[in-house]
Amino acid sequence: DSKLKIFSLNSNNPLAEEIAKEMGCELGKSSVKHFSDGEIQISIEESIRGCDVFIVQSTSAPVNEHLMELLIMVDAVKRASARTVNVVMPYYGYARQDRKAKAREPITAKLVANLLETAGATRVIVLDLHAPQIQGFFDILIDHLVAVPILSDYFKTKGFNPDDVVIVSPDHGGVTRARKMAERLKAPIAIIDKRRPKPNVAEVMNIVGNVEGKVAILIDDIIDTAGTITIGANALLEAGAKEVYACCSHPVLSGPAIERIENSVIKELVVTNTIQLTEDRKSPKIKQLSVAGLMADAISRVYENKSVSTLFD
Amino acid sequence: DSKLKIFSLNSNNPLAEEIAKEMGCELGKSSVKHFSDGEIQISIEESIRGCDVFIVQSTSAPVNEHLMELLIMVDAVKRASARTVNVVMPYYGYARQDRKAKAREPITAKLVANLLETAGATRVIVLDLHAPQIQGFFDILIDHLVAVPILSDYFKTKGFNPDDVVIVSPDHGGVTRARKMAERLKAPIAIIDKRRPKPNVAEVMNIVGNVEGKVAILIDDIIDTAGTITIGANALLEAGAKEVYACCSHPVLSGPAIERIENSVIKELVVTNTIQLTEDRKSPKIKQLSVAGLMADAISRVYENKSVSTLFD
Ligand SMILES: Nc1ncnc2c1ncn2[C@@H]1O[C@H](COP(=O)(O)O)[C@@H](O)[C@H]1O
Ligand SMILES: Nc1ncnc2c1ncn2[C@@H]1O[C@H](COP(=O)(O)O)[C@@H](O)[C@H]1O
Repeated sequence: DSKLKIFSLNSNNPLAEEIAKEMGCELGKSSVKHFSDGEIQISIEESIRGCDVFIVQSTSAPVNEHLMELLIMVDAVKRASARTVNVVMPYYGYARQDRKAKAREPITAKLVANLLETAGATRVIVLDLHAPQIQGFFDILIDHLVAVPILSDYFKTKGFNPDDVVIVSPDHGGVTRARKMAERLKAPIAIIDKRRPKPNVAEVMNIVGNVEGKVAILIDDIIDTAGTITIGANALLEAGAKEVYACCSHPVLSGPAIERIENSVIKELVVTNTIQLTEDRKSPKIKQLSVAGLMADAISRVYENKSVSTLFD
Repeated sequence: DSKLKIFSLNSNNPLAEEIAKEMGCELGKSSVKHFSDGEIQISIEESIRGCDVFIVQSTSAPVNEHLMELLIMVDAVKRASARTVNVVMPYYGYARQDRKAKAREPITAKLVANLLETAGATRVIVLDLHAPQIQGFFDILIDHLVAVPILSDYFKTKGFNPDDVVIVSPDHGGVTRARKMAERLKAPIAIIDKRRPKPNVAEVMNIVGNVEGKVAILIDDIIDTAGTITIGANALLEAGAKEVYACCSHPVLSGPAIERIENSVIKELVVTNTIQLTEDRKSPKIKQLSVAGLMADAISRVYENKSVSTLFD
């Protein structure tokens, strides 16, 4: 019988600690340091021979640093004769370059998948990929978890009357996600339909669906600079919504995001802890929910060779 | 007949410019920027369909940033239907983790080789690898250039009497390199033999070979924190050397390096431009020689399908 070992790298140690706690075990001992010239120096400080190893790392900012940490750790774990090398990536960075939008562009989401496989990963556990198609970029097994139940459960505690709520997708790409949340909250959906009537004319925010007098809950996978979500919130109020909440799985929150959210009409932004919020990205308006239980469940199921599919929605 | 295109990334643009000038061509148009969250955004701004593309990038500090730039560029070039994707790495970072010195360590030099192949490199041109064995880490073609002739030619201009000169290797691993330089300068060699007489007793610097009354020229592949080289220089003076010069291919020069060199007995440190020297790593004691001609020659020969082996020593 092979042993389970969970290791954390530097992107999200609090989440890794919480996962280990949920599972009633301790994190494996390892050290990630830098040589004087900035090269990453990793060493694993306990035997993992024959073990099922799970490495918890989000490729959030600084993304290149975190991705290289992960690749080097996977290499070290593989060479230390682990039985399986499972990469737990609560946030999968570089996912938004997932197709050639223009000529001569890279497809970084596929590159990252290939790099992980080359380094020696045997399985990957991710949560809310920017596009579900990215699953197909892997030849190794991939488990794709979703945060919609966690986000929905939080909004249930607010005690809104389902008839007063509408779940809003900020674009056409996010409708499936919005519908999943709407089903859980027994609410209808609406869609923000951005349109540029003519070239060089400002975009028009057209709301498809009825939001009048309702509590609108915007849902997206990633909130990055928060431009889309804050402008969308304004459009919802203009269309008659009573108040606007927003939620997402991955709080990237770069650049002007915090300022925009604080100055926006959004009442509360609900996010998960797939990405650690540094001090400068915390705000009284932001509520962070934990995915540790979900990730711990997925790890246990993979380890015990049970189906993970019940965690999919 | 396919066309030659040379692209530069951000680690060493001056060297790439110089290489292009040597070859009488312009650098290809591309842009390397960052999205708000720090992810690298590359686009190639001219057609490279069917071309032989050469990408110039040293994986010097910040190494993870420069390596990811390179991998993403290789991916973009491959997807833009280039005929061949040649990676020109004047400095190959992560090379010093080239074996498992201890249990459960990664072998980053091999990992980097695999990552480059996976991204789509079809050939690699490098200079003075930390260990020549790293050539064997690649399944694609690799050309291995050496800087000894460039360094030797510089010391020839000093007009030393060959009988007054001794070339010194700072350790046993560097003897082959020292011997190559000694042959060119028609000088003998010496070796610094570090020994720890007992555990927890300071290392003794024992000089193997005669340095008395001579101009000693220390040669190494990489000078990083400059500890070895400055301590070695002291030992050479103590053993009777008249004066001490030092040279290397790759001026990593991290941490205390510049301070140590400036405060050392070393008269002059001669390096190449495989790594760009940022302003804080420049010093009146450091002379930088260009490898642009050598790299340009190698690129031309690879492009024209001629032997590169005459550039090996
Ligand atoms: N890290 C990033 N930050 C902002 N935009 C990105 C990033 N990566 C890719 N993109 C762009 O986002 C667009 C794809 O987003 P989407 O349409 O939501 O799938 C493409 O135009 C990409 O060039
Ligand atoms: N970037 C680095 N900076 C300093 N030391 C390193 C670096 N990478 C690897 N090493 C160590 O350098 C030693 C190998 O150097 P060498 O004996 O000269 O081949 C090993 O002990 C490595 O752990």
